[in-house]
Amino acid sequence: MAYTNVKKIFAQVGAEAVLTEPADLRQYLTGFESSFGYVLSDKNGSVFYTDPRYLEAASSALEGSDVSVKIFEGSLENLLKPYKTVAVPLSRTSYPEWKRLADAGLQVIDSESAFVNAMSVKQQYELDLIKSACEITDKAFVSLLSVIKEGISENDLAAELEYFMRKYGASGTSFSTIACFGENSSVPHHETGMRKLKFGDIILVDFGCKVGGYCSDCTRTFLFGDDKKNEDFKKAYGHVLNAHMLVKEKVTSGMTGRQADAIARDYLSAHGLGKYFSHSLGHGIGINIHEFPRLSAKSGDVLVDGMVFSDEPGVYFEGDFGIRIEDTVTLERGAALSLTDSDKKLLIL
Amino acid sequence: MAYTNVKKIFAQVGAEAVLTEPADLRQYLTGFESSFGYVLSDKNGSVFYTDPRYLEAASSALEGSDVSVKIFEGSLENLLKPYKTVAVPLSRTSYPEWKRLADAGLQVIDSESAFVNAMSVKQQYELDLIKSACEITDKAFVSLLSVIKEGISENDLAAELEYFMRKYGASGTSFSTIACFGENSSVPHHETGMRKLKFGDIILVDFGCKVGGYCSDCTRTFLFGDDKKNEDFKKAYGHVLNAHMLVKEKVTSGMTGRQADAIARDYLSAHGLGKYFSHSLGHGIGINIHEFPRLSAKSGDVLVDGMVFSDEPGVYFEGDFGIRIEDTVTLERGAALSLTDSDKKLLIL
Repeated sequence: MAYTNVKKIFAQVGAEAVLTEPADLRQYLTGFESSFGYVLSDKNGSVFYTDPRYLEAASSALEGSDVSVKIFEGSLENLLKPYKTVAVPLSRTSYPEWKRLADAGLQVIDSESAFVNAMSVKQQYELDLIKSACEITDKAFVSLLSVIKEGISENDLAAELEYFMRKYGASGTSFSTIACFGENSSVPHHETGMRKLKFGDIILVDFGCKVGGYCSDCTRTFLFGDDKKNEDFKKAYGHVLNAHMLVKEKVTSGMTGRQADAIARDYLSAHGLGKYFSHSLGHGIGINIHEFPRLSAKSGDVLVDGMVFSDEPGVYFEGDFGIRIEDTVTLERGAALSLTDSDKKLLIL
Repeated sequence: MAYTNVKKIFAQVGAEAVLTEPADLRQYLTGFESSFGYVLSDKNGSVFYTDPRYLEAASSALEGSDVSVKIFEGSLENLLKPYKTVAVPLSRTSYPEWKRLADAGLQVIDSESAFVNAMSVKQQYELDLIKSACEITDKAFVSLLSVIKEGISENDLAAELEYFMRKYGASGTSFSTIACFGENSSVPHHETGMRKLKFGDIILVDFGCKVGGYCSDCTRTFLFGDDKKNEDFKKAYGHVLNAHMLVKEKVTSGMTGRQADAIARDYLSAHGLGKYFSHSLGHGIGINIHEFPRLSAKSGDVLVDGMVFSDEPGVYFEGDFGIRIEDTVTLERGAALSLTDSDKKLLIL
C-alpha cells in the first residue's frame, strides 16, 4: 500500500483545509507521481483530485490508504466553499492563484514550513528508496568503467551510464547526466557534448537516478591514462578528496549547513584552493534533486538525523581542469553515513 | 552565437524593466540552460544574472550576443531601484515574490502573454532543433525494434530506447519514457515497471528526447507476435490510426484547439469509441514538453503556422488494453507536417 503523509502534514499546519498543488508535494502526500492534481485535506480526510488519465493508476495505488481519488471538476472556489481558512505552500503559489483564494474570502496561510520540515527528515521507507537509487548509481559507475575507450564522446559516455542505471532498476535519471572530458571539467555545469576522449584526459561525471520517485546524486573525477602531464591535477585531487572525507568525518547532527560547508571550505583555503571552490558544499536530496537542507556558507539550516544531502566539494581552474567528488550522505546516530560509496582513490584507467 | 529573444520580448511587454526567473523562460531569452538566474532587460540592454557555477559557460555561450552575464549579488530590490514598473510572468511568480516587488513600490505588470505568444510560434532555429530531436526519436524507434525479445521488462525496453536516443545525439529525454506491456497499456500514465514481455502482448511506448534544449514527443502501439486473441485491439487500432491521420489531413491554420480536438473526437465517437478517448488530442511542444497551444475540447487557442504540437488520440479499456498513436506535428503553409513519422501501420513483430 502507498505510504501517505496527508495526516502528518494536516496535523502540523493547523488550518481548516490544506490544499496542495505542486507535483513534488503531491507526491509526498500521496506517494503517487502525477503531472496534474490537487490534494485537499481537512479534519474528515484527504482527497486527491486529478484528471481521467490518472484515475485508474491513482485509484489502484491509493486503494485502502487514507487518500481517496476523485476527478477534478468545477472550480477550486467550489471545493473550498466549506472553509474559512486554507493553507497552501505560499512560495510555490503564484500571485494569481493566491488572489483567487483571497478574493473568494478565504484566509490564506502558509503550509510550506510543514512540508520543508517533514520532507527534509526522511522516514525509513524514504531512506530505503534513496539507498536503492544509490546502490544502482554505484553499480552503474563500476559497469561504466569497462566500456570507456579512446574516442568515446561525452554524450555516448552519458548514454552508457544512463543505460546501466535503467538496466539495474532505476525508473529514470534524477537529472540529465553531466559528462566532461579534459578542459571541459573546468566548467561546473558543462553541457555534455561531442568532445571525444583522448589518452591522458580527465573524466568528470555527475549523475544520479530515481527509484520510487526518490533521487541519488554522485560525482566522480578520474583519469583516462596517465600522460604524466597531470601533476597539478593529482595534487589538487588529493586535497579535494581530503576535504570530501573530512566532511564525512566531522559533520554531526546539530551543526548548521554553514558549519558543514566550512569543514571543506576551511580545509581547501588552508591549502590555497579556497577561491577555486566556487559553489556550496551540498544540498538536500529526496523527491527533488535539490531540496532542504542547504549546506552553504550562508545556510542556517540545522542538520539532524535522517536528513540526506550531498557532500560535493569541487575546485575549477578556468580553461584548464576541474575536480568534484560527490557522495549522497545521510546522518544516522549523529554521524555521516555514505549512501553512494564507490571507490574515490584516484582512479587511472 | 546564441539565439536570444530578449529584444523581442522587451519590445512586446512595454514595461521599463522585464525581470524573468523561470528556467524555461530564461532559456528562451538567452538560449542558455541553467538552474539559477534572472534576466533583466531595459531600454539599454539585457543582463543575465547567475551564480559562479554558470559564469564561464554562460559568458562563453553569450559572447558577442545582446545579453551580458554578471554574478547575482545583493538583492532584487537593489537591481530594480532604477525603475517604477517591472514586468514578470505573473502565473509563474509566487505570491511572496510578487509582494516583495509591490512592497518595494514597484508597479508589477504581467509579461506572460508576451512569452506565450512568442514561444508558441517557433522560429526557424527552433524548428530545426525540434526536427533534429524528432529525427533521433524516429531512428531510435527503428533501432528498438531489433532488440525487443520475449522476457524483456518494460524498464529494460525503456533503457534501450533512451540509450539509442542518447547515442544518436540527444542531450537527454524530454520526459521519462513510458513503456507498457499487455493490460498495462490500458493505464494512460502507467509507471514503467518490471512486467515482462510475452508472446501476443501489446507494446505501448511514449517517448521523446531533447536537442539543444527542445523536445520531441512520440507514441507507438504495436504487437509482439499475433496470438489471434487481439481482434478487438486490431479493430480499435484501425480507428485510432484513422482519427490520428484525419487530424493531420484536416487541421488548418486558423482553427482553434477545440476544433482540432473535435476532428479526432467526432470520428472516434462515430465509431463508438468516444467515451474511451479520455484525454485531450494534444499539447504544444518546444522548450517544454507541455506548452501552448492546447488541443482539447475546451481550448480556444488559435493554431497558426509555426506552432508545434502533438497529435495523439488514444483509447483505453480499463484492465484490458489501450492504444495511443502520437506524432509531433507542425503547421506549415496552413497544413500539418509530421515531424516524427515512423511507420504507423499496425506492426506485428
